[in-house]
Amino acid sequence: MGSIEEFAAEREALNENVMKYAGLTIKRFYGLDARAYRDGALPQKTKELLGLVASMVLRCDDCVAYHVIRCVEEGASDAELQESFSVALVVGGSIVVPHLRRAVDLLDEVRAERGGGADPERP
Amino acid sequence: MGSIEEFAAEREALNENVMKYAGLTIKRFYGLDARAYRDGALPQKTKELLGLVASMVLRCDDCVAYHVIRCVEEGASDAELQESFSVALVVGGSIVVPHLRRAVDLLDEVRAERGGGADPERP
Amino acid sequence: MGSIEEFAAEREALNENVMKYAGLTIKRFYGLDARAYRDGALPQKTKELLGLVASMVLRCDDCVAYHVIRCVEEGASDAELQESFSVALVVGGSIVVPHLRRAVDLLDEVRAERGGGADPERP
Amino acid sequence: MGSIEEFAAEREALNENVMKYAGLTIKRFYGLDARAYRDGALPQKTKELLGLVASMVLRCDDCVAYHVIRCVEEGASDAELQESFSVALVVGGSIVVPHLRRAVDLLDEVRAERGGGADPERP
Amino acid sequence: MGSIEEFAAEREALNENVMKYAGLTIKRFYGLDARAYRDGALPQKTKELLGLVASMVLRCDDCVAYHVIRCVEEGASDAELQESFSVALVVGGSIVVPHLRRAVDLLDEVRAERGGGADPERP
Amino acid sequence: MGSIEEFAAEREALNENVMKYAGLTIKRFYGLDARAYRDGALPQKTKELLGLVASMVLRCDDCVAYHVIRCVEEGASDAELQESFSVALVVGGSIVVPHLRRAVDLLDEVRAERGGGADPERP
Repeated sequence: MGSIEEFAAEREALNENVMKYAGLTIKRFYGLDARAYRDGALPQKTKELLGLVASMVLRCDDCVAYHVIRCVEEGASDAELQESFSVALVVGGSIVVPHLRRAVDLLDEVRAERGGGADPERP
Repeated sequence: MGSIEEFAAEREALNENVMKYAGLTIKRFYGLDARAYRDGALPQKTKELLGLVASMVLRCDDCVAYHVIRCVEEGASDAELQESFSVALVVGGSIVVPHLRRAVDLLDEVRAERGGGADPERP
Repeated sequence: MGSIEEFAAEREALNENVMKYAGLTIKRFYGLDARAYRDGALPQKTKELLGLVASMVLRCDDCVAYHVIRCVEEGASDAELQESFSVALVVGGSIVVPHLRRAVDLLDEVRAERGGGADPERP
Repeated sequence: MGSIEEFAAEREALNENVMKYAGLTIKRFYGLDARAYRDGALPQKTKELLGLVASMVLRCDDCVAYHVIRCVEEGASDAELQESFSVALVVGGSIVVPHLRRAVDLLDEVRAERGGGADPERP
Repeated sequence: MGSIEEFAAEREALNENVMKYAGLTIKRFYGLDARAYRDGALPQKTKELLGLVASMVLRCDDCVAYHVIRCVEEGASDAELQESFSVALVVGGSIVVPHLRRAVDLLDEVRAERGGGADPERP
Repeated sequence: MGSIEEFAAEREALNENVMKYAGLTIKRFYGLDARAYRDGALPQKTKELLGLVASMVLRCDDCVAYHVIRCVEEGASDAELQESFSVALVVGGSIVVPHLRRAVDLLDEVRAERGGGADPERP
């Protein structure tokens, strides 16, 4: 099992535990969270980039990892991700750098596990 | 002078004062800040939406106002702005609501000052 | 019209504007926000104190004002509010102090506008 | 040694190291921190719930873990904890979710290590 | 009365109101806050610069204003303040810019009200 | 290899990966970041203390670790570091405590690996 799948599996297991005890407020919040990223006037890819930048400036590694993976799944290119990282870094400052380092490292891994192809323009 | 122009004029005056005393680090930071939103793999409109969501979850009214105005200038529709607000609200929580209220209010004003046209699909 | 009513009226007007353009995600978020503070295993008063402390450590004046007013409406005593302020100050540090100053000032006003009675133990 | 005891032991060891070098300001801050959660107009249980929600919206896992354990020690029921989690989630947004996941997981463990009894109404 | 004195007077009045109702935790916190900036291994000027940078990255205008005034009182030069602003801007990112603008504006005012002299090297 | 060297090596490797894909904005940001801490009106030691306090109140362990190491390299004494920790703790509140614990622990290690000498006044 690749490290991306491990990340997803652990996340899934913990979320199931949350749901086991969650009341209606938490359950509905999870529903809203999914809803906010669906296709609409903006495509999912753009919304995932919005979620990625929000997660970087708020400095949450789990959230950054989740959105990096989702961005790749929605077909975001390396250049699009790099430019989103740049906005996050300039808005959020050097305190974002450790999260940027881990995001770039994860992106590398995601591309490797997916066997290239994903971003044909990648150098 | 409309309130949008007032906002821009005050911002300009204060920035000039910053530049009067700024050393090279601050000057270059201002340059980088401008650079991060230029057209690239992602168009300016998308980058301004990224800046808007980042500003909302970090809860900076001045930054939100600036990016709302820039998003409209780049042709963002109301639907695109509303969906970006939704992502910001879900990521950042109810603590974002007062900033959302002011952002929607400003957006109304911006559309009014620009005389419609900007978003032909607006109801 | 007292200043508390003015605060409520302005808040109401801005929220109506939000609702005019809001999509389903934002509308449902507003519903969830109301839901989280209803009576349950914890009474509303305690939940409002939780909301107050969360708002203080996140340093949002509008949110602090809203919860101070709601806490008083739910019958929170000055002593209960002071102890909640203390937790917020110790958790959040001196950066919370300007918000504490405004919260205490508003509480004074709220008690005055409500004509005492609210906290019979007030010195 | 259960994982709760390990957490407490490591925390204790690190705090002792802080105290070895700490000047009067840090020592007194630790005293204030303890003081803010003592019984008063609000019981300790409520104050620990305040500390828990503050820690969740500020997204500090160590602080969340500490307050989850203390809440259980003060007799907080699962329903009371879930409702506090709900307030934290709604105020702080989806960026709080990873901390919520870990908090629920820890709560499970705490209940297991304490051998039930703690919350007779638990399903 | 100059605007600096007004700022100080309002701050003083609000603090007195806090003290009127404050319990021991809040009172002692105020004492600790004063204590942290006293001369020690580091001189007061350096500690005020530390407080200034902390306030800027946490984006609290009242705190920034307070520390800018205190830094000038402790003899900080414009160059020292500009370099502290630079560190705050780089660490905290563009979200700090609106606070930087107001800090520079206030610094200008403080120098004007004090009648120059304060920083003989000022251009 | 001591743990300080390991920290530096891992940081270096991740930064190289960032640089491999980084566009001009990110590259220049890294340059600015280095620039902000150079000797000027304020010596590097003071700037590193500013960076340390900013990192502590923003609660970034990697950044705190980096600046603790740099402060020691620039000759900061234990007393100077403790007083900087105190400012960070008072400004940022108890939410800073877990980071303070790890900072003190790391400082201990740094002094041990450097073989004393660094702070002759250490008790």
